[in-house]
Amino acid sequence: MNKRTFTVDICLSPTLLPLYELKGKVVVIVDILRATSVMVTAFGHGIASITPTATLDDCEYYKTLGMLTAAERDGMQAEGFDLGNSPFSYQTDFIKGKDLAMSTTNGTQAIAASLNADHIVIGAFLNIDAVRDYLLKLRKPVLIACAAWKGKPNVEDTLFAGALLQKLGEEVVWENDTCQIAHSLLESAGNDMLSLVHETSHVKRLKRLGIEKDIEFCLQENIYPLVPYLQGKKLVI
Amino acid sequence: MNKRTFTVDICLSPTLLPLYELKGKVVVIVDILRATSVMVTAFGHGIASITPTATLDDCEYYKTLGMLTAAERDGMQAEGFDLGNSPFSYQTDFIKGKDLAMSTTNGTQAIAASLNADHIVIGAFLNIDAVRDYLLKLRKPVLIACAAWKGKPNVEDTLFAGALLQKLGEEVVWENDTCQIAHSLLESAGNDMLSLVHETSHVKRLKRLGIEKDIEFCLQENIYPLVPYLQGKKLVI
Repeated sequence: MNKRTFTVDICLSPTLLPLYELKGKVVVIVDILRATSVMVTAFGHGIASITPTATLDDCEYYKTLGMLTAAERDGMQAEGFDLGNSPFSYQTDFIKGKDLAMSTTNGTQAIAASLNADHIVIGAFLNIDAVRDYLLKLRKPVLIACAAWKGKPNVEDTLFAGALLQKLGEEVVWENDTCQIAHSLLESAGNDMLSLVHETSHVKRLKRLGIEKDIEFCLQENIYPLVPYLQGKKLVI
Repeated sequence: MNKRTFTVDICLSPTLLPLYELKGKVVVIVDILRATSVMVTAFGHGIASITPTATLDDCEYYKTLGMLTAAERDGMQAEGFDLGNSPFSYQTDFIKGKDLAMSTTNGTQAIAASLNADHIVIGAFLNIDAVRDYLLKLRKPVLIACAAWKGKPNVEDTLFAGALLQKLGEEVVWENDTCQIAHSLLESAGNDMLSLVHETSHVKRLKRLGIEKDIEFCLQENIYPLVPYLQGKKLVI
């Protein structure tokens, strides 16, 4: 096995993505609350593919083709679509073998902004070790792209970036200061990410929507050992 | 004295500034290595005013008016200007009473992007307690605007933001997740900011330019108890 190190960088917001070279890179898209956690959950329960769409119009178009659709804006299910953005709605046999089109406030926007990358994969705490193993096998430069909240960096995506760095350990070289920043956040959380995440303004906003169970679920590690990746316009595993 | 709390938020990069409401706010511009540290130093040694300019052309225009000029690009003094971006070049009687025009890679760009704010003040470790006292007196919503490095968040500006939050203590309410992120970074540095800053890629780049003494100088707290603020096009104290 080739043991050379490779670089890892972290982009804290999709608004900053144009500053990063994506060509030649593996981009790990992260939207812990909740787009990428939901995607991983859906694959864990047998969905065949997910087509991420940046706009609701595109998502509606796929609905006219007879596809299952999911859409969320500002934390709530958008009207007229089959599913929203709670991982619990995907834990059902109903989705098995189906093709889903999905549009979310932040996560699918981050995917749309990363299309110049060589590989796009979906990361969440729910599949973090599988993502680490995938990156260690590929050994290409990595950019962890946080979906953030409407462009503003958030705690939970930054925490995930720090945790993935930690798990990659000595196999990688940190490319930029955001690596120190994310890693410090992880260290300050210690064994209690949930408390740190609960303190954040972003999560206070989400809690008003009654999704505390979702938050707890999305912070669990390694529930689904799989890595969704973009193939053409579709995520598959 | 009015003891109501006020909000503080942190913008980690000038590229993200358009996402923030600046009207009604005090913006604290931070470019620890080295623009805002240099500005504070210059006022500490008697400069009368500093006119920040985003472009070198504008800076050259002020030179034709007979003003003293300072310009830096990519960490080095730009050709044809009187001064560069090392705080040590400003520790001289020569600058006393003079008006200076200054353009830097990141710091003066951040000022140019913040002009919609109600107040713009210059923050550095060198004047951090004076900035805190100024904000506590004003009691208006604050945005700490990190100059970053060509749009990418850096450790030293984020550390300063965390340190200023810490010093503002219970008088302020944290508005967004970047407050937790910056505060964690500060905590992870403990009593040894210098070591953390030395580990960063950004500083490794600067060290190649032989400015290690500058870095050590710029991380010192409260050398100059003064707060430069923008009045029209000029910074004054």
